Amino acid sequence: MTEFADAAAQVMARCETLGTLSQDPSCLDRRYLTEQHKLANQLTSGWMIEAGMTTWQDAAGNIWGRYSSAVPNAPRMILGSHLDTVPNGGKYDGMLGVVAAITLVALFNGEQKKFPYHIDIVGFCDEEGTRFGTTLLGSRALTGKWQDEWRRLKDENGVSLEQAMAEFGLNFDEVPSAAIPATDVLAYLELHIEQGPVLEQENLPIGVVSAIAGAKRFNINVQGMAGHAGTVPMSMRHDALCASAEMLLAVESISQQRAGVVATVGKIENAPNGVNVISGKTVFSLDIRSEDDNLRDAVLAEILQKFEHIAALRNVKLEIEQTHSAPAVLCDEALKAALVKGVEASNIPAKILASGAGHDAMAMAELCPVAMLFTRCKGGISHHPAESITHQDVEASLSALHHTIGALHSNISALG
Amino acid sequence: MTEFADAAAQVMARCETLGTLSQDPSCLDRRYLTEQHKLANQLTSGWMIEAGMTTWQDAAGNIWGRYSSAVPNAPRMILGSHLDTVPNGGKYDGMLGVVAAITLVALFNGEQKKFPYHIDIVGFCDEEGTRFGTTLLGSRALTGKWQDEWRRLKDENGVSLEQAMAEFGLNFDEVPSAAIPATDVLAYLELHIEQGPVLEQENLPIGVVSAIAGAKRFNINVQGMAGHAGTVPMSMRHDALCASAEMLLAVESISQQRAGVVATVGKIENAPNGVNVISGKTVFSLDIRSEDDNLRDAVLAEILQKFEHIAALRNVKLEIEQTHSAPAVLCDEALKAALVKGVEASNIPAKILASGAGHDAMAMAELCPVAMLFTRCKGGISHHPAESITHQDVEASLSALHHTIGALHSNISALG
Repeated sequence: MTEFADAAAQVMARCETLGTLSQDPSCLDRRYLTEQHKLANQLTSGWMIEAGMTTWQDAAGNIWGRYSSAVPNAPRMILGSHLDTVPNGGKYDGMLGVVAAITLVALFNGEQKKFPYHIDIVGFCDEEGTRFGTTLLGSRALTGKWQDEWRRLKDENGVSLEQAMAEFGLNFDEVPSAAIPATDVLAYLELHIEQGPVLEQENLPIGVVSAIAGAKRFNINVQGMAGHAGTVPMSMRHDALCASAEMLLAVESISQQRAGVVATVGKIENAPNGVNVISGKTVFSLDIRSEDDNLRDAVLAEILQKFEHIAALRNVKLEIEQTHSAPAVLCDEALKAALVKGVEASNIPAKILASGAGHDAMAMAELCPVAMLFTRCKGGISHHPAESITHQDVEASLSALHHTIGALHSNISALG
Repeated sequence: MTEFADAAAQVMARCETLGTLSQDPSCLDRRYLTEQHKLANQLTSGWMIEAGMTTWQDAAGNIWGRYSSAVPNAPRMILGSHLDTVPNGGKYDGMLGVVAAITLVALFNGEQKKFPYHIDIVGFCDEEGTRFGTTLLGSRALTGKWQDEWRRLKDENGVSLEQAMAEFGLNFDEVPSAAIPATDVLAYLELHIEQGPVLEQENLPIGVVSAIAGAKRFNINVQGMAGHAGTVPMSMRHDALCASAEMLLAVESISQQRAGVVATVGKIENAPNGVNVISGKTVFSLDIRSEDDNLRDAVLAEILQKFEHIAALRNVKLEIEQTHSAPAVLCDEALKAALVKGVEASNIPAKILASGAGHDAMAMAELCPVAMLFTRCKGGISHHPAESITHQDVEASLSALHHTIGALHSNISALG
């Protein structure tokens, strides 16, 4: 038990409460511009007010709270994360970062601590992108990267983003007003569950993020020749699925040999996919990530070269289509150092680790220096009802952030 | 051009005509107990009558023609194949064997040739099993293997087999009357397209079948651990799809090393099958065939042992479920020898090859000696509109069968 035990209990209880707001009674599913989005904003807003903050909702639907500085024209230190979830999601992905920040501000408020900057907490309205198929809508509204063409994005029921905003009480055309001038913002600091197993394996409650990995994604099309499973001799086959299997193992073995890279074939579609038909065509995905873009691209080149080699030997046709590319986002050195000190001041070894998953901090990096603190989650499981964190690890998270922000208080020039 | 040129032209034209009877205007699709089944039976019956035969439809819906022997209580020599097709099928799979037999009888009739046995031609009503999911319904009615529980088999529209028979004008309960006493039948001889590429590769128009391969089928369940494609290090993964890929390549390499066996993974389902999610579960099919059951089972044991080994090394859970098992059916030695002589009398080298696909002859083997002659098909393609045979190869097929049956005429005791 630390001095943050009660605060951690509050965080755990509030994640539990937010976890009840779901558009689907059978699981947690809270998407952008739904009735449950509105309820989550109202609930969060109430907690912000309770913590001594003034609150508002911006033109994109993000909920904000401000713990005001006494300094005139003070810059903004933004803390936060997202309030939306994936379908059948967990209670901590996103919510933890919003709720913990509010509890932290409540502590500062109780201590009557004031800062040379506003502490602004944001609950982003859409990070997962589940409803309209485009991620980070909330944070991209802040960075001025909101796209007019998103107006026509449709959800699974055919409702456009523009229409959904109107039904929610927002106006698509006003979203650009949610953008924040870079000069107003000091930094963005995000607490998030790790969504991976590294901290658990290292037996550590929290870790400081070095970078958010850059990702490239591809669709790999392999065209062989379908045939009757009984009548075509093994030597005369051009089996697309066998070729794909060999490529898949190449992805695994090449990326296993290079630390700092993960590469995954998560999706595969085979045709005609009949028990008694030799595969004629296979399409599979390739997702490759690293915090080092050059390393990622070098490993990628090796993988794609191996694909060409396999396709040539097996006489199958190969088509490689890139579907996504995002560079790695490095966390700010000064903020990272401040977090390391905050972790160590909590008597926890400061583990530095990369984030393989994307976060709002990726978008916010276009606006200001960013940093992230990760909280251990059970089994590394996320995007699943089994998502789980402990009270103790939330204590550690609050302690580290409390120390970090307290120290930044006296050292704001380091962030200039 | 041989003496069978006109006859071959008739066969080609009739396959073309039968190919127009389809329940789907966009492709050839003729299933059991449909209006098109009825039309195909009527058309075939007309050709049989024209060839000098008496005709009838049995209680299962098979169409029959008899070229009667002058001998009292003569046994039956059955020629034929099936008249149903797969959806989006070809014009020759099945039809060729029925139509060619009718043309052959027409030739004998023209020659006023009589036999010490009835030549009965059967057009089986259901070999593919497309409508009710159970194959060889037509031939199994003849062998007394019709199952009462099939009454409740349903098609994709929920129509039961019993109901569909009633609508067609048949009575499910009368099907057992279609069974034929084994003592009445001399032999079953089936002409069929190869549905594989061997004869084309050997540059031969026809080939004599040694055996119909026995097949075993399995569903292989591989349970790993799903995870985030960005956050789980390569070394901590239990990727079900990677494990399956390794198993798939083991199937390919082990069966490549053993002549006379084909093994195929034609179907794979991956879960959750998301671009950014490590595979948690994969289910794939295994189909393994050989004309030598012992060889097949030895290769199968090697494959399954390798599966266990891969699963153990990767720490994934493996479940193997057998879904099908059929022993190989050997063609009758005397009939095979008669076919070889018939082929050689047509000045064609007699290639002996196994059938990897199943045929009505498999069911008929429970009743009598069986044999099959294969006709080359273009690219080995079957179950597809691109199914194609040549006029010349049909001439060769008719010639070989004409010689074979003519020779059997004078040597019927060899079949006793």
